[in-house]
Amino acid sequence: MRLKLLVAQYYFPREAFDPLRRYADIYWLEDMGAEELDRVLPQVDFMFSHGWPRRLDAAMASKMKKLRYVQAGNAGVDGMGFDLFDRKVVFCSNVGGYSEEVGEFAVALMLAAAKKIVMFDRAVRAGEARKGIDATAQNRMATRVSVLRGKSLGVIGYGEIGKATARLARGLGMKTLAFGRREVRERGVASFRGRAGLMEMLRRSDVLVLALPLTKKTKGFIGREEFAAMKPDAIFVNIARGEVVDEEAAYEHLAGNPGFTFATDVWWDRDGRESFSPRLPFLKLENFFGTPHVSGPSALMTRSASRNAVANMVRFCRGEPLRNVVDTSEY
Amino acid sequence: MRLKLLVAQYYFPREAFDPLRRYADIYWLEDMGAEELDRVLPQVDFMFSHGWPRRLDAAMASKMKKLRYVQAGNAGVDGMGFDLFDRKVVFCSNVGGYSEEVGEFAVALMLAAAKKIVMFDRAVRAGEARKGIDATAQNRMATRVSVLRGKSLGVIGYGEIGKATARLARGLGMKTLAFGRREVRERGVASFRGRAGLMEMLRRSDVLVLALPLTKKTKGFIGREEFAAMKPDAIFVNIARGEVVDEEAAYEHLAGNPGFTFATDVWWDRDGRESFSPRLPFLKLENFFGTPHVSGPSALMTRSASRNAVANMVRFCRGEPLRNVVDTSEY
Repeated sequence: MRLKLLVAQYYFPREAFDPLRRYADIYWLEDMGAEELDRVLPQVDFMFSHGWPRRLDAAMASKMKKLRYVQAGNAGVDGMGFDLFDRKVVFCSNVGGYSEEVGEFAVALMLAAAKKIVMFDRAVRAGEARKGIDATAQNRMATRVSVLRGKSLGVIGYGEIGKATARLARGLGMKTLAFGRREVRERGVASFRGRAGLMEMLRRSDVLVLALPLTKKTKGFIGREEFAAMKPDAIFVNIARGEVVDEEAAYEHLAGNPGFTFATDVWWDRDGRESFSPRLPFLKLENFFGTPHVSGPSALMTRSASRNAVANMVRFCRGEPLRNVVDTSEY
Repeated sequence: MRLKLLVAQYYFPREAFDPLRRYADIYWLEDMGAEELDRVLPQVDFMFSHGWPRRLDAAMASKMKKLRYVQAGNAGVDGMGFDLFDRKVVFCSNVGGYSEEVGEFAVALMLAAAKKIVMFDRAVRAGEARKGIDATAQNRMATRVSVLRGKSLGVIGYGEIGKATARLARGLGMKTLAFGRREVRERGVASFRGRAGLMEMLRRSDVLVLALPLTKKTKGFIGREEFAAMKPDAIFVNIARGEVVDEEAAYEHLAGNPGFTFATDVWWDRDGRESFSPRLPFLKLENFFGTPHVSGPSALMTRSASRNAVANMVRFCRGEPLRNVVDTSEY
């Protein structure tokens, strides 16, 4: 018997799922009316979704008696509806599908922070640098520029995205410091573990990139004490999830340390959703800048994300071991 | 007899010149009154200056009968007062003193352009992305992000800065295309020469970095035809001199091609001086952004620029061959 795949929310082109047609019938949630959905749900063997669709609430989920496997479109699987199923359903994240693209984005944010590009562009547009070159003033401005060659990058969460970021940064001549649960035994990488290890890495790094998944344990992971341990002129880049950083601690630290820079692509939640308009007035700060969570989605265009997710679903169809299985107890 | 060095304009700390004290007496232009200057000028053997000081006009220059060598603090030596001397005075540029720092800056500009960091930050601050995540809108925004891995970088002027830029870009997984007067025989670099070669490279590159010196021949080098040859969604980065680009051609191209991005650290002249307030309204464009000529000065902090210049002056004192001798007929 052919397998049945339900594609719920998806940001890939439909053709990206073509390699699965050999093994499975594909049902698109958006194409189905209530009646058809009622008939299909009990037969679904596996499912794909970017985030969790509102339409599949607890009542709907309870009808999916045959469901064995959910493939996430996202690398970060916070909010994936794990608790809708009491039975043994395997969830897989799309870790690796975005690493190169998000890593490149993280390097772009750290370089933009080091060169003060956003701040300088704003100053030029506002006419603050209008009067033409006065070499002394110009050289004074240049003292605000950092050169990253030879500096230390601390990666908080040395997973696929963290590794990709560090590899690109090494190409710029930066040293890699890595914090994670497991010891990193990679040539040229200094490994830090545990609370004391984290604090030491924070003290020693010139640039920090946050690349931890958002789980119960990592919510608010970077707080007052962690910011205080960082160098006063450090660059902090978040390409993980907004909520891994304590919003108030971040604001206070930025307000009190004008030489410190926070660059982000991910934002804090308001009313249960990520919002580009934070509760605290970050957007008035000179030493904060951000992009509206576009680092991951940029991997939709390179097709890296769809290839990675579809390859895992092909493994499922062939009865091969799945990759990136999520420990749902952490969420 | 000890040599005499006149330090005219300098942006290095005075200590940077210390290695020369073994060979030469150092005179600081800013310390000298008219009388002392009159007495010293005829005895000066060599001189150091960042740009050319107004005080040393033609009358003053004519008094420097013993002058044999001028070391520039800058890598680009346009405006160095070459025609003040009819005698054989050797001018040396400070090529190499800024390459790593300016190369890193060029990569920062190209990544900021690729990720639309300035534009997105402005949109977020203006509240345009305020309503929280709507996945469709967010994915649409992300289609404006470019991933540079695998893309082609065309370097216009493959000197020290061009090479440093290309090397860092290769670390991001970019291919190198190089245009210059000489054929480039470097592994992994496609070499282009002559007018036809330039046009072909412009057509094939996703990102272009302009790194030519400003000379009589390169003024307005990138004009209407050159812009027209570039891909409509190319990224163009200028870390050379504003005047190497035709200002009107650039403005028209940007206004007519919203997908094209121009990122610059260097600006066009107004009233004979580089001005951060261009004559045409570049600062109103979404697809243009810039920093106030801080890429080079950032090398003042790493001391790379002073080490390079002082090393050449030490060569002069020891009677060793000088490096970076300028062909003044080009200026």
